[in-house]
Amino acid sequence: MRVESDFKWGIALFNRFSERINFLDTTLRDGEQTPGVSLVPENKLRIAQHLDELGIDVIEAGFASSSKGEFEAVCLIANQGLRAEVASAGRSTRGDIDTVIKSGVQTMSMIIPTSDLHIEHKLHKTRDQVLNVTEDCVTYAKAHGLKVDLLAEDATRSDVNYLLKIFQTAQACGVDRVTPCDTVGILSPDSAYVFFSKLVAELKVPVGVHCHNDFGMAVANTVAGLGAGAQMVHGTINGLGERAGNAAIEEVVVALHTLYQKQLRIKTELLYGTSQLVSRLTGVYTQPNKAVVGENAFKHESGIHTQGMLANPLTYEAFPPELVGRTRRIAQGKHSGSHAIRADLDSMGIQPTDEQFNEIFQRIKELGDKGKHVMDADVLAIAENVMGLNGVKPIELQEMTFTGSNNALAQASVCLCVNGKTVRGEALGVGPVDAAINAVKDAVKETENITLEQYNVKAITGGTDAVVEVVVNMRKGTRIVTAMGVREDIVKASMEAVISGMNVLAIDYRIVNGNNNSSSSARRH
Amino acid sequence: MRVESDFKWGIALFNRFSERINFLDTTLRDGEQTPGVSLVPENKLRIAQHLDELGIDVIEAGFASSSKGEFEAVCLIANQGLRAEVASAGRSTRGDIDTVIKSGVQTMSMIIPTSDLHIEHKLHKTRDQVLNVTEDCVTYAKAHGLKVDLLAEDATRSDVNYLLKIFQTAQACGVDRVTPCDTVGILSPDSAYVFFSKLVAELKVPVGVHCHNDFGMAVANTVAGLGAGAQMVHGTINGLGERAGNAAIEEVVVALHTLYQKQLRIKTELLYGTSQLVSRLTGVYTQPNKAVVGENAFKHESGIHTQGMLANPLTYEAFPPELVGRTRRIAQGKHSGSHAIRADLDSMGIQPTDEQFNEIFQRIKELGDKGKHVMDADVLAIAENVMGLNGVKPIELQEMTFTGSNNALAQASVCLCVNGKTVRGEALGVGPVDAAINAVKDAVKETENITLEQYNVKAITGGTDAVVEVVVNMRKGTRIVTAMGVREDIVKASMEAVISGMNVLAIDYRIVNGNNNSSSSARRH
Repeated sequence: MRVESDFKWGIALFNRFSERINFLDTTLRDGEQTPGVSLVPENKLRIAQHLDELGIDVIEAGFASSSKGEFEAVCLIANQGLRAEVASAGRSTRGDIDTVIKSGVQTMSMIIPTSDLHIEHKLHKTRDQVLNVTEDCVTYAKAHGLKVDLLAEDATRSDVNYLLKIFQTAQACGVDRVTPCDTVGILSPDSAYVFFSKLVAELKVPVGVHCHNDFGMAVANTVAGLGAGAQMVHGTINGLGERAGNAAIEEVVVALHTLYQKQLRIKTELLYGTSQLVSRLTGVYTQPNKAVVGENAFKHESGIHTQGMLANPLTYEAFPPELVGRTRRIAQGKHSGSHAIRADLDSMGIQPTDEQFNEIFQRIKELGDKGKHVMDADVLAIAENVMGLNGVKPIELQEMTFTGSNNALAQASVCLCVNGKTVRGEALGVGPVDAAINAVKDAVKETENITLEQYNVKAITGGTDAVVEVVVNMRKGTRIVTAMGVREDIVKASMEAVISGMNVLAIDYRIVNGNNNSSSSARRH
Repeated sequence: MRVESDFKWGIALFNRFSERINFLDTTLRDGEQTPGVSLVPENKLRIAQHLDELGIDVIEAGFASSSKGEFEAVCLIANQGLRAEVASAGRSTRGDIDTVIKSGVQTMSMIIPTSDLHIEHKLHKTRDQVLNVTEDCVTYAKAHGLKVDLLAEDATRSDVNYLLKIFQTAQACGVDRVTPCDTVGILSPDSAYVFFSKLVAELKVPVGVHCHNDFGMAVANTVAGLGAGAQMVHGTINGLGERAGNAAIEEVVVALHTLYQKQLRIKTELLYGTSQLVSRLTGVYTQPNKAVVGENAFKHESGIHTQGMLANPLTYEAFPPELVGRTRRIAQGKHSGSHAIRADLDSMGIQPTDEQFNEIFQRIKELGDKGKHVMDADVLAIAENVMGLNGVKPIELQEMTFTGSNNALAQASVCLCVNGKTVRGEALGVGPVDAAINAVKDAVKETENITLEQYNVKAITGGTDAVVEVVVNMRKGTRIVTAMGVREDIVKASMEAVISGMNVLAIDYRIVNGNNNSSSSARRH
């Protein structure tokens, strides 16, 4: 699974990696501090179980003293008998330490601010007072049997000699690990390397790397810190966290694995599933162009790219999608190359002549030029049109009505023309969209064995009359196609998407042509 | 606008920055190759005008030979008399060069693959043939008056000596700039620094940095390349681009400005607006935890953070939001601190006693514990309840019904109780949501002067009965509040959000208490 290349001049500066690199995941603590994110204890537990399975060494389960529900969540996770070490964050106060002890975790992530800015403006204390607090709290926590990871808050804006004094004091009191936090993300790879080199040289205990992403460099800074000898990665799934978030664990893992050939004990093939779970439970979706786990990370559209890709996936992939539990995808659009479109038509059983193909190819690109996201349904429509494959759709909407109210289920009825025969369907639903789609299912159930696999609506922004984009995945047997509906009304957009997806699946020109070698009917009986 | 800190040990390794750093924006070319993105020429032009205003040096307007619409877009931008240099990408073929010449741009981004992988598997050529093509194409383009930036595709997986030979050949033919592309994003900051140091030392022409984000390190690698003496940043707004995208220009700019104190000619305060425009026109939304431009980049929720923040914003901010044209925001949730909640109540004119405040504070945290995203409407409801401020809502929904069909507008009617009086409203709309909200507006129009400023629906994933989250911003005079509705039915969720937002605005306890100093009525007449 290595990148095969002439990339021999690569790793030169960051050359003091530790033999063993450990991972602390703080999705459930720093990640959950993402504004608007709040996980109930059961969901925290589900994520913790996935992290355990993934091979994370330390799971920071929460901030035990922050609320009653949070305390319960930490207790719940601490008592599951997970393979991973479970930690809770807390401030450097006896009260917080007691709460962490009570929660039953093995480890405390003990937070102590070390920059003058934080010491003065937030704590209203002096440097000496903070030093005393550190001594007292580490000693107290150790005496009560906790493992302690001392997290120096705003460490990267602290006087580095004072920071060292704090860490050395903690070391003398028996601290297990120390972690300078780049609380506002101001490290850069070069400064991170210099900073961690100094700390690692001066300390005996393992050093952690806790980077924030305010300048988009958290992952690179983490790698630089490790390259300077730090041993413990602090990160979150999907890079969740306050503001711009923390270092994304999935990116750090793949970079260490692929670019630095590090042996890790992470089951990389579970990364995508874990990312999806965290997205779903937190409601924070990753952007399509997010590295490793974004929707587009292994999707290819442009002509040059797909041509190379079809010849050898390595041409446009740094690592195979299977490494992180994903698969490769090809999308059509204005940049589409002929290779990709031909592959697509083939899957629909459509075999155009070269001349027809050129016409189809041009029309797809024109559609893309008009700003349209090209779906399977569009490719089919164009091919049918160019090849004279009969414009009659197997399924056509004739009528649809729906009603609903604030205190009852919505109801819808449809009248469809399916293979020339009029059929009716009616159904209830949680709302008008659900009712309308259920009515379509009701109408076609006897003639077509098609299911709606996924129903997605792009975020709607603006007003109640904004244009709504509905994208569906429809399945028939092993074949899955995508289709889209774009309307101001979500009910109409949904109907449009579902019916056009059904039509792609209801036709198979391989069968049609195989049977009668004629293009006069696209229907299948 | 600098970070004030003891961060003196910072910039140590990347120490060969050029005096002048230039920016090439490829949002309209590499960014537009994002799967599913397709911009019509007018929208490309709008983005180009914004980039010009932002202070970008070179705007890569598209790939002139890729389609008819794309050619038109490139021509349109080339002929606007923008301050910025306008470029078009193209392959190293006479045909592509001719198309670029015809488009009227000043500069060609001439792409030539240089890795054996690309040369063999994609081009089916030899290294010598590619060298000859380079010589021929650069000479031809220069002879026709184009400025040429030679983009070596997959440069970072190429034999570095061969790559140098390509660049030196191009240099001998009069190339203006050369840019090794990290096509699959395999650089890391240390390898980038070593790589660019070598190229810059061996070449006389300016070197560009074109990084992809497959391992999440594109921005850091770009900074490392600049620190090694490269002069031209290639990047995109929001980090758009194939797969995981390109280096995000806004992140590179802010990192250079704030962390390396570089003087740039970018109007940083326009970065956010440009990012928003690109999001809107491409339909690719940035994730909340995206650095610099993400929704949460300057939003604070957790208690420790907001307390520090209210005392001194620098405690949890690397740079002021105004630098990039934004403002700071505080969100309530289970991690909320008392300082932030008190500030929020104050804006609603609610002044609880200390005891009442503690109760409100606990209940808000409990709500957060239950996994709820806490909105203004929730804070109000809790405060009313704790303070006995009368549970009767100024506006209550009594009945709502809607109907719609495939070939007519939807229609809705509502019956509301507004300040104890029953009012009815009815309206048409593009769909049931629009009709229902219009009916509410119709019903309250005489009693309340409240407008719906923004209506947003979070992306819906799963099925047609998935839970829908509607978030609205409602305005009355200068006050804007947020409210949310969460239901399986988008119509009900929308009604819930709008009516609870209206209720927050319809009450102002400052006025209520100021008038009669009583808490027996929350109504305003």
